[in-house]
Amino acid sequence: MTANRILAREGVVDSFGHVSIRHPDRPDRYLLSRARAPECIEAGDVMEFMDDGAPVDAAGRTPYAERFIHGAVYAARPDVQAVVHHHSPSVVVFSVSAAQLSPVMHMCAGIGTRIPTWDSRARFGDTNLLVTNLAMATDLAAALGQRPVILMRGHGCVVAGMSLREVVFNSIYLQLNADLQIKASALGDVTFLTDGEVAAVLRTRSAFTFERAWEYWCRRAGRPYDGRPMEGPLAGTT
Amino acid sequence: MTANRILAREGVVDSFGHVSIRHPDRPDRYLLSRARAPECIEAGDVMEFMDDGAPVDAAGRTPYAERFIHGAVYAARPDVQAVVHHHSPSVVVFSVSAAQLSPVMHMCAGIGTRIPTWDSRARFGDTNLLVTNLAMATDLAAALGQRPVILMRGHGCVVAGMSLREVVFNSIYLQLNADLQIKASALGDVTFLTDGEVAAVLRTRSAFTFERAWEYWCRRAGRPYDGRPMEGPLAGTT
Amino acid sequence: MTANRILAREGVVDSFGHVSIRHPDRPDRYLLSRARAPECIEAGDVMEFMDDGAPVDAAGRTPYAERFIHGAVYAARPDVQAVVHHHSPSVVVFSVSAAQLSPVMHMCAGIGTRIPTWDSRARFGDTNLLVTNLAMATDLAAALGQRPVILMRGHGCVVAGMSLREVVFNSIYLQLNADLQIKASALGDVTFLTDGEVAAVLRTRSAFTFERAWEYWCRRAGRPYDGRPMEGPLAGTT
Amino acid sequence: MTANRILAREGVVDSFGHVSIRHPDRPDRYLLSRARAPECIEAGDVMEFMDDGAPVDAAGRTPYAERFIHGAVYAARPDVQAVVHHHSPSVVVFSVSAAQLSPVMHMCAGIGTRIPTWDSRARFGDTNLLVTNLAMATDLAAALGQRPVILMRGHGCVVAGMSLREVVFNSIYLQLNADLQIKASALGDVTFLTDGEVAAVLRTRSAFTFERAWEYWCRRAGRPYDGRPMEGPLAGTT
Repeated sequence: MTANRILAREGVVDSFGHVSIRHPDRPDRYLLSRARAPECIEAGDVMEFMDDGAPVDAAGRTPYAERFIHGAVYAARPDVQAVVHHHSPSVVVFSVSAAQLSPVMHMCAGIGTRIPTWDSRARFGDTNLLVTNLAMATDLAAALGQRPVILMRGHGCVVAGMSLREVVFNSIYLQLNADLQIKASALGDVTFLTDGEVAAVLRTRSAFTFERAWEYWCRRAGRPYDGRPMEGPLAGTT
Repeated sequence: MTANRILAREGVVDSFGHVSIRHPDRPDRYLLSRARAPECIEAGDVMEFMDDGAPVDAAGRTPYAERFIHGAVYAARPDVQAVVHHHSPSVVVFSVSAAQLSPVMHMCAGIGTRIPTWDSRARFGDTNLLVTNLAMATDLAAALGQRPVILMRGHGCVVAGMSLREVVFNSIYLQLNADLQIKASALGDVTFLTDGEVAAVLRTRSAFTFERAWEYWCRRAGRPYDGRPMEGPLAGTT
Repeated sequence: MTANRILAREGVVDSFGHVSIRHPDRPDRYLLSRARAPECIEAGDVMEFMDDGAPVDAAGRTPYAERFIHGAVYAARPDVQAVVHHHSPSVVVFSVSAAQLSPVMHMCAGIGTRIPTWDSRARFGDTNLLVTNLAMATDLAAALGQRPVILMRGHGCVVAGMSLREVVFNSIYLQLNADLQIKASALGDVTFLTDGEVAAVLRTRSAFTFERAWEYWCRRAGRPYDGRPMEGPLAGTT
Repeated sequence: MTANRILAREGVVDSFGHVSIRHPDRPDRYLLSRARAPECIEAGDVMEFMDDGAPVDAAGRTPYAERFIHGAVYAARPDVQAVVHHHSPSVVVFSVSAAQLSPVMHMCAGIGTRIPTWDSRARFGDTNLLVTNLAMATDLAAALGQRPVILMRGHGCVVAGMSLREVVFNSIYLQLNADLQIKASALGDVTFLTDGEVAAVLRTRSAFTFERAWEYWCRRAGRPYDGRPMEGPLAGTT
């Protein structure tokens, strides 16, 4: 619920977009809301799915038609614990442009470099662009590969990570990086982070960075902050 | 009232712009507020009009001078049940540019492709640009034809659809598409949805999509959501 | 107070900028707040000034250093009843660019066409750009001439009109026009309103248009709307 | 606390960024919050540091990893009483562009002219870009020299000044100037303030200007305004 409310508050999702976590005890399952706008989601909306998209117990609730994205990523990436699919406007802009999104700022290094765009049309032709079956979702997950982010042409993106805090963090800073790059491109050539810099940020980033942001976003979204004890080294804090 | 408040909250209308529905029992009539800013409209402001713009019972209320737009569209398009006229800033931008607005994202497919611009000056010369009589409104409705949207040069646009939820949805995503296209154009060439993709979205879109957005927009606008049961197939949900 | 709060709410003024009215009984005087951010102004802050900028009874209150602008405009323009000086960001952009601001949309016709920019440096050399004496203010008022708006290079603008509602209306739509023109220019050539169209808008605009907007802006600014009866013909409403 | 909340409210800082003041009695020390988002900071979070970054009494609180920036500036600049480090998005844009940030508007003159960018890579190679030791901080402070502002490539900036009110004011108007310059550049050539104009603004600026803005920003941030009596000449008020 909190992740959904934060993404809504920060403008990453509107009526659409969704966030899931892998089931803590059953790695072949994941938890995801029923089909509802993120801002409106309540505890009773959270459903459990098999990784092929079948609901464990729908109890009359309508699932997201695009839930297959989540299952395909969890199946392909054992390291991934959380997934966001969203349509952040600034990110969509890069999905319909030849300009390549890449980090321009240290806080955005977690999005990966030279982010590719998956085009549903390449393999599936003229569709409604929705990833509503396992074939499309598997193709998308393959294009994602070991990356944290992939764009979807004329649609949005997928963000995959090790925790809910990480995918929310990377979703928000992905949106910021897109904003920055649009503005900087209008001024002329853009200096991107080097691959060595991106690697250095990822190597030194700690859970504490995600915690600090999480506390802030909880406050903005009007959600209680659960004050989880800080984990990991502090070297990557700013 | 809810449609007006939503459009105000989402920045589609300011002090100006209006939304109507065809009268449920008398198809030659429509319901539209008296002349008032959408954010301020109350139940007692809703008036009934003949399709030539004559109020059925004004009861001292001042009508919108541009109400003729609504009647002309209802007369020309028996399929249309709701009409919005608005001045969304991003949409006005395309009305004064040779750049052609067209969907770049699946959620925006409902606005139609290669949206034309009606220029009041072509036939009526130098006016105050307002559509304040049936001759101008009929010309505008003819230019709209079977489309869901037409731009009006230096003025705004008309959005026509099958339900209040649809015209509000398409108004908001028309604005988003304009924003996206402005930003993407600044980066270089833009990849639009193909005609086949737009057709596929329209073919598979369900009322459920509009409902999900409506619940969200009601919450943002501080309006109760009436929880209407979902209708239609679910294939087009995201 | 209400005009100040509206301009703050709509982003036209921040900590700076001010709005005055000509004294209703003494045409050689005007009413203007003491030096305070518009959002913070209270009834006791309103001071009375001679048109040379001398306070009638300062009562310990510090006046705006740039109050001279107001007096010089009232002295040069007997028709003017209200003046705003503001630094709306989008308007300042045109003050430092060779691109010429001109109406692209009917609601913005009241700002005048091909708006010129007054440059304090032309006559007064390197200053802090503030209009803090009658010589500068008189030069500025002369450049304004019979126009409703003049830009001030690297500084802001002056908006002069027949009523408080008109100058607030034109200030807000001046800002909107600047936003629209910036975006449209990025897409290519811009189609401006013709001189005939601007004239037609001004000829048909009624006080009712200002009233409708005023009610809306009062609501957004959290100010009571005084429900003044509508005046004038309705032809210019939208 | 108030400075932090203001910077958060005005969008200059998000979860990251920090503001310090020199210790009023011990000029070799400074006061800075523990590592927390500015919007969330409470009185008990404020820590005291030696100018080499060592906490005087951490009491279990985690300091900002980049606190070294503050100490290095205080050591190099005896005149400086307050320092902000922030990542305002519009400012970061200029840090990754060859376009040079310089004042276009009188309120922004305090940021200095032709603001340079410090690139951590020039001397320290591929890092995570964070200034987490005294060597980097000292290099950055040397690049700042006698200026009020320096940008940091792919990261943010440092703003140094004579008071908390001044660094907050210059941080917010730095952000505004960046916004203005991005928009004006899109329209064509930009007219900057002359060096003589910038000097005139700085020569005539009074503490009253900062006070007026502080009262406004306190109100927006929901913080009490302490109503400190106005200081200094009034010539620079607007």
